[in-house]
Formats: sequence, structure tokens, C-alpha cells
Amino acid sequence: MSTLTNHQVRLAQRPDTTATREHWNFTTEPVGEPDEGGVLVKTLSLSLDPAMRGWLNDAKSYIPPVAIGEVMRAGGIGRVVASRNPAFAVGDAVYGTLGVQEYAMVVPDQIRHTGLAKVDLRLGTVGQWLNVLGMPGMTGYFGLLDIGQPQPGETVVVSAAAGAVGQTVGQLARIKGCRTVGIAGGQAKCDWVVNELGFDACIDYKAGPGAVREGLKQHCPRGVDIYFDNVGGEILDQVLAKLARKARVIICGAISQYNNANSMPGAGPRNYLSLLVNRARMEGMVVFDYADRYPVAIAELAGYLKDGRMKSKEDTVVGLETFPESLNKLFAGGNFGKLVLQVASE
Amino acid sequence: MSTLTNHQVRLAQRPDTTATREHWNFTTEPVGEPDEGGVLVKTLSLSLDPAMRGWLNDAKSYIPPVAIGEVMRAGGIGRVVASRNPAFAVGDAVYGTLGVQEYAMVVPDQIRHTGLAKVDLRLGTVGQWLNVLGMPGMTGYFGLLDIGQPQPGETVVVSAAAGAVGQTVGQLARIKGCRTVGIAGGQAKCDWVVNELGFDACIDYKAGPGAVREGLKQHCPRGVDIYFDNVGGEILDQVLAKLARKARVIICGAISQYNNANSMPGAGPRNYLSLLVNRARMEGMVVFDYADRYPVAIAELAGYLKDGRMKSKEDTVVGLETFPESLNKLFAGGNFGKLVLQVASE
Repeated sequence: MSTLTNHQVRLAQRPDTTATREHWNFTTEPVGEPDEGGVLVKTLSLSLDPAMRGWLNDAKSYIPPVAIGEVMRAGGIGRVVASRNPAFAVGDAVYGTLGVQEYAMVVPDQIRHTGLAKVDLRLGTVGQWLNVLGMPGMTGYFGLLDIGQPQPGETVVVSAAAGAVGQTVGQLARIKGCRTVGIAGGQAKCDWVVNELGFDACIDYKAGPGAVREGLKQHCPRGVDIYFDNVGGEILDQVLAKLARKARVIICGAISQYNNANSMPGAGPRNYLSLLVNRARMEGMVVFDYADRYPVAIAELAGYLKDGRMKSKEDTVVGLETFPESLNKLFAGGNFGKLVLQVASE
Repeated sequence: MSTLTNHQVRLAQRPDTTATREHWNFTTEPVGEPDEGGVLVKTLSLSLDPAMRGWLNDAKSYIPPVAIGEVMRAGGIGRVVASRNPAFAVGDAVYGTLGVQEYAMVVPDQIRHTGLAKVDLRLGTVGQWLNVLGMPGMTGYFGLLDIGQPQPGETVVVSAAAGAVGQTVGQLARIKGCRTVGIAGGQAKCDWVVNELGFDACIDYKAGPGAVREGLKQHCPRGVDIYFDNVGGEILDQVLAKLARKARVIICGAISQYNNANSMPGAGPRNYLSLLVNRARMEGMVVFDYADRYPVAIAELAGYLKDGRMKSKEDTVVGLETFPESLNKLFAGGNFGKLVLQVASE
């Protein structure tokens, strides 16, 4: 083991807007042996998420920011390559906050903090465990079902529909008997959302001024019962203007806001008084609150993957060294499906 | 009866900002006799409410706008002076949407629409029936209890604390075992809120820049569990920044926004992502949705008035002809307590 080398990506400085290569340091360290109770995990694939951008801001949020000099936080799937912990054996596939590095040394105190847990690769591939069966899937599942409480026949709109959370939300809403309308950028992506993911419709927000308003008018004639918001900004405002009575708006993220430092929040939703007119509610959710119920969600979603009612679509980029540019692919809207960074192929 | 004269206030033109005397017409009409099924009500006192300003905008809202030329909509307490409807007898005290006029002729088709209902003046005075026992009281009661779901020991913040809804919310929250913090304009009003209404604290939002932020920090050290928002704007933003986990924000009105035409909404709440960080929700409520439960609320609130745990504070102005200026007293923050326009004293 002592001959292994660990390549890592660390935060060098905090970005004000977009994080670029200069905000990261690439470091190399020898890999040690785990202490008593520790586990060494070889990273297979990492999840690239919009929320990562928020972790770079030195601001109060649902988890602390990544410190300067720290290995960038990232959830991933790996393989246990050395273990002095009876709960994990060499060869086990695991999920955890492995970080953007080739090897994660999980010390005893951090096993719980890292969320290290075995995953069953018979239920899904490495990519699926980072997507529908992973954090994005859990976010979509609990956000839609617990906060949104969809009823058959209702209209569910989800932004970033081609992304990781969006694809789970839309497909799950369809399974629950709802009309599902996505919002995504570009005609090609919209076609993909309808044809590959089975949404009833998808609105191209890049199709020009008024495209979202017109699209909502066309595809949501009875208004929007549930809006699962992944983007914030102008799109949130447009959907607020089309809420149905007793609508539920799930605030799960705000990708349009992430490239601002938090100390200077952008404009708020101008149309928030639609909540009053329509007796509607807007509610924030953080997936970690539902950790004790992940197994139930995974069992249900794995069933849908198996019987073909749901697809798990990943967009995989390869190589740890591509991390800075690969992360920004999310904000440029370049990904079709959940963005996954493959670090090693076993 | 035919010798009676009815003085009325009608909408002459829609205001863009503040409604002034030029936006109203004063008209005089003879009072007729009720047709079969109709009721003639003599207005005693009218409720002046912030929501009235919203009814002047030609925009979609929870009720249609007042039409040009129409008698201004207003809820009030009156006395039946003629009736050809078996449900109402001469001498009955009634609540209804009487309008800004001395006599309301309620035709059979409109009795339900007008919400005409007998009130028991043994439970409360005319003023109290427009305040804690009336629409503001119902708004505070159902907004706080149904949407807010206060738990003992929680911190409840309410803006426009000296107003009609605010006084019910704060006093009811105290009765339910909560810490109650008001927000109001001016030290004299804040003292009144604490000394007369029994709030634990009251923040003077006019005390200078940062006054609300500092006041919340001082009086809500564990954050805000429930915010009952009557004002919107900057104050809403400041409170959003201080939400506790799982906080509830009740959107009941937005007095700071009412003097804008709805087609140009003001800035939205910049700090709305606090809902995400704190897993909090913001929900709109319209009191009319709870009409079938008003009797339960009235019985409970009348009990508190009787045993002295709650006070009903009115600020009474006299004379139909003062309506334009009296209405604006609300927006200038001139009222201590529920603003009531006394039209006749029996």
C-alpha cells in the first residue's frame, strides 16, 4: 500500500463568481495505512453538483464552507482497498464524502461524518448510485413526495429537468399520476427530456424572451400545482406567476444564484405575493434531514429502475484533472443527465 | 323609509400610488324599500383595512377589484332597519360587506355574497366586532394557529403589531405560550404595544438603519420560529435573515407593496434562500377560506376578551366624509389599534 500515490484537488482561493483553474491546487501525497478503525477507499466516481459552488462561499449555510487548503468536498462511490474497521471489508463498494481525490483515508472519527455506507452494486451501477439512487435521487424523492405531496392529475413543473434532481422529480411525478412539465436550456435538451425521460412537455428557457411564460401558459393550462425549483431567479418568478390554488413550491437549490458570493444575494422573487393570492406555500428542504429514510427511497427507486418505469441518465466525464472545467459544465448547462466525474474504472 | 338619504363614497379613478380625494366621488341617493327577500341595513361603523388599497388595482387577486363608479367595498357593522327576509328582523345587528355608505340595500341574490350575518353585541362592542371578533381577528387567528402552528416557548414575530391583525396575533401567541415580539413604527407605538397589548418586546423600525436587524438580534436570540408578515418589503427580508430551523412565515398582506399598481411588483424578498438553509416555509393565507370555522374562533376570542387575557384596541375616526384621509392613516402608520370609521352612532 505504501507505494500508492494520491492525487488531490484542493481549494486554493475563494471565487467571487465562477470558480476557474486558478481557484484550485493540485496536490500529490503518498497514501498511508489506515489506523485502527480506519478505512482506505479508492475513488471510482464522484458526483458533481450545483451545491458545490455554494460550499466555496465563506457564508452560513446548511453545511460549513470548504476551508482554504482543504480537499474539495465531493460525494462519491469507491472501493475499500484497506480496512481496520470491522464494518467494512476490502472489496466493499461504498458511498461517502470521499472528496476530489483518488484515495480517501477515512479515519475512525470521521466515518459517521463522511456518511460512509456500503452500497449494493446489484441494485444499480456506480453512476446510478450517484444519480437516482444517490443524493440527487433522494433530494428529488423527499422534496417531491414529502414537501410537494403530489396528487394524481396535478401538474408538476421542474426546472433543470435534464439534471440529476430534475430527472428523478419528473419521472417520479409521472409515476405518481401527475402531468410533468420540465424546463431546460435548448431545444435538443428539451427533446431529450421528453423523449428519453418521458416528460409530457419541456419548455426551452433559452428560446427567447417570454419563452417560459408562453410555455407555462401552453403546457399548464390549469396552473402549476407543484414547482420543484432547482434554479431560482427569473424562472422561479415566472412560475410563481402561474401557480394554482394551494400550490407547493419546493426550494431545493438556486443554481442561478450560486455564482454570487452569499453576502450579496441577487434579487428575490418579485412575484412572491402569488403565494398570498393562491394560498400557496414555498418551502425549503435539505436532503440530509431525511437520512434515516434513504433506504426506503432507494428500495422504491431501484424497483422503478428495474421494471423500466424510471431511467437513470448520467453524463460522465473522465479524469480527476478535468475537475475545474467539468464542474463548470453544470453552470453552463452543458450536461444531459447527472454529471459524474469518473476517477478510476476499478 | 322613502325620506331617507344615502351618502356614498364611490371609486372615481384608479390611483397609481396613494389614493387621494380626487380618486373618489361622493354621491347622494334616496333610499328605497327592500324587495321580497331583501334587507336594508343602516351602517354603524366600517372597517378600514390595508387590503382596501389592493382592491383599487385592476389586477387579478383573491377578489375582483372595485369597479370604477362602484361604491367602495368595506366590511361593517350595521343595524337592520327594514327587512323582507325572514332571516333578519328590524333591529338585528349584522356584519356584512356594507360598502362605504350610510345605508346598504342588500338584495336577495347578494345576501350570501355580502356575507350578511347576525352578530351578538353582548359578546363584543361594534368596534370589537370589526377588530378581534371580526375579519382582522379571524385573519390573525387562522393565520397564526392553522398556518403557523405555534408551540409553547417558540418566538413569534409580527409586523404592524399595533394594527388590527397584529394585536390579535401577538396576544394570541402570548396566550399560547410563545415569546412575542412586535415590529411597529415609532417609540410611542412600540411602548403601547408592550404596555397595552402585553408583547414581550417591540422593535421600532423607524429608529434608524439597522434597527430591525439589531432588534431581532436582541429580542430573538434563538431566531424567529414564526413570522406573521403584514408588511412585506425590507422588514420581511430582515426577518428572513433571522429564521430559526423549520420556521413558518405567514404571508397575510404586504402593506409596503399596496401603493404600487400590481403590474409593477416591487423587489422580492432577497433573503428567500433562508427558507432553504433553515428548511423553513412561507405560506399565503386568505381569511375567507376559513369562513365555516369563524364561529369557533369567535367563541374562543370572545372568551379571552371576557376574562381579560386579550384586549381589543380600536382607533375610531368619525364621519363618512373623512374616508379618503382616514384610509391613508393606515399607510402613514398613524393608527394605534384597529382603524374604525364610525358612520352613525345608532
